[in-house]
Amino acid sequence: MKFSITVTLKKDVLDPQGKVVQNTLQNLGMNNLKSVRQGKYFEIEINDQDVKKAEKKIDDMCKKLLANLIIEDYKIKKI
Amino acid sequence: MKFSITVTLKKDVLDPQGKVVQNTLQNLGMNNLKSVRQGKYFEIEINDQDVKKAEKKIDDMCKKLLANLIIEDYKIKKI
Repeated sequence: MKFSITVTLKKDVLDPQGKVVQNTLQNLGMNNLKSVRQGKYFEIEINDQDVKKAEKKIDDMCKKLLANLIIEDYKIKKI
Repeated sequence: MKFSITVTLKKDVLDPQGKVVQNTLQNLGMNNLKSVRQGKYFEIEINDQDVKKAEKKIDDMCKKLLANLIIEDYKIKKI
């Protein structure tokens, strides 16, 4: 069973990395850019058969390691 | 108009960062892990009204800056 996880900074947290990407894109001549935010992406495959159990496990992983809940949000999707 | 972009290493490219995450998760007691791959995630907002034009622009950004096409794939999704 495969899951995709996206971890993004919360809306009100400054994102200097995204800002740098935005500036670079503008320097490359891309205009009309409103905002760029960068995050992390994981694809995790686990051997569990039970979807609910698997989702619970992935959620645990996010809480324990993948996301910093103070400044980040995460989304889990089965793929 | 807002797009999400995920950039992932191609299937055959080694992912040491993902491997480290996988090992750490296993050390935390998560078993049944089959694989962990890590990638990049971007949320880009642009002011264009025309969806096709906007998508073309985002595609350009990926090719020019966000993804290294030799070792990475990217996916664009309107959100």
